[in-house]
Amino acid sequence: MASDSPVRTGDFTAEEQRGLYRAIYSRRDIRTFKNDPIPPEVLARIIRAAHHGPSVGFMQPWDFIMVQDMNVRQLVKDLFNRERQAASSFFDEPRRSHYLSLKLEGILESAVNVCVTCDPTRAEVVLGRNSIQETDLYSTCCAVQNLWLAARAEGVGAGWVSILKQPQLRQILGIPHHVIPVAYLCLGYPVEFPPEPVLQSAGWRGRLELETLIHFDGWEGGTESGAWEGFKRAVSETGEQNGGPPG
Amino acid sequence: MASDSPVRTGDFTAEEQRGLYRAIYSRRDIRTFKNDPIPPEVLARIIRAAHHGPSVGFMQPWDFIMVQDMNVRQLVKDLFNRERQAASSFFDEPRRSHYLSLKLEGILESAVNVCVTCDPTRAEVVLGRNSIQETDLYSTCCAVQNLWLAARAEGVGAGWVSILKQPQLRQILGIPHHVIPVAYLCLGYPVEFPPEPVLQSAGWRGRLELETLIHFDGWEGGTESGAWEGFKRAVSETGEQNGGPPG
Repeated sequence: MASDSPVRTGDFTAEEQRGLYRAIYSRRDIRTFKNDPIPPEVLARIIRAAHHGPSVGFMQPWDFIMVQDMNVRQLVKDLFNRERQAASSFFDEPRRSHYLSLKLEGILESAVNVCVTCDPTRAEVVLGRNSIQETDLYSTCCAVQNLWLAARAEGVGAGWVSILKQPQLRQILGIPHHVIPVAYLCLGYPVEFPPEPVLQSAGWRGRLELETLIHFDGWEGGTESGAWEGFKRAVSETGEQNGGPPG
Repeated sequence: MASDSPVRTGDFTAEEQRGLYRAIYSRRDIRTFKNDPIPPEVLARIIRAAHHGPSVGFMQPWDFIMVQDMNVRQLVKDLFNRERQAASSFFDEPRRSHYLSLKLEGILESAVNVCVTCDPTRAEVVLGRNSIQETDLYSTCCAVQNLWLAARAEGVGAGWVSILKQPQLRQILGIPHHVIPVAYLCLGYPVEFPPEPVLQSAGWRGRLELETLIHFDGWEGGTESGAWEGFKRAVSETGEQNGGPPG
């Protein structure tokens, strides 16, 4: 963004705002970790940030299973390896070899694994949930994003291992049947925070143009009143700055 | 947190870190808005922050439907009112009256509504998604949390209207059948960012103790090796500070 961007309103200082945007723009899915442990107070801040996620009806459906035990992690890694092999068969060559060459997780090397779960039974009647049962899952995901951003601000990397089958993961961790393991995360100090997502730099897939994802007053556009001209211009002017934070 | 907290590692300045934590800790579900419009460049930054959410296989499954048109909003409000009435019948008195007395949305008063959707067909084969189809929904929720935090850092409030039925909302906004409306958000400058969640101060439900939500090496505890003692102590020492950010 140009340095002549308008004065910002609100109660955050420019540097505080920059901190939030830096976390958002430089957060990465980290799969390669250094050996250093995470100090307990840093890990505690990261987990508490997750606990301050939004939740429908303030139900706070999440739990956090902290995993250091290498026997447990090896079981998760074995599960991952089977899933990865299975996943590869859905790709044709050369995509398949490309997929298998990508490092997708740091289950064993990371300082700690954290499984974030969702307990849909936490509140008997949940305000705001009669229509969409998924909203407790949505809440849990928002908590995960808080965790991810807090980790980034602490210099800690997080990687989401997304291909683990829920029933098997539930069994390994002893999770009750009604509780949903939403995210299995690897946390630790990264070798680096790459300037762009690994899948982007590996040529797997590029970032979409934001302009193509925005609709006005309905999916098919709708208004031609010019009400959105200023916003359209602003979106194009705040375009991608090599992944850096705006401002 | 005490002022003698240890020196922080990583590449964020203390103020940048504070900015991230402030956004997380002071983000609220906002339902009461002032009349002021959101400057286009502020809104553009908020939406672009969402676009930098994480996504499985970098599929970026989200779209953003920006809604200003009052006719469209009135239809959404009508849908909300019907859902709210229906929802109230799931509560017994005095919970029912309490529910009906709560202000739950600012659809008409807010500066703009934003519907964030998820298109599961955006990528033909999605890396990391063979096991859990929900992961594209999870990605979209992480994007919503980015949006919510960016809004907070800009002094803009966001409220998630969670009880709208998907088929009806899809119809109002002309969303294709295969696309899932995940979040319907109201954005605008709030009358205030309350110090604690509205449902907490209204006596609806309190914040859970983080300690009760943390498990070690498995749901039932597992290790008694003392490996987690430092972390347990840190969690209790970084306890709730009246909702304020740590550090």
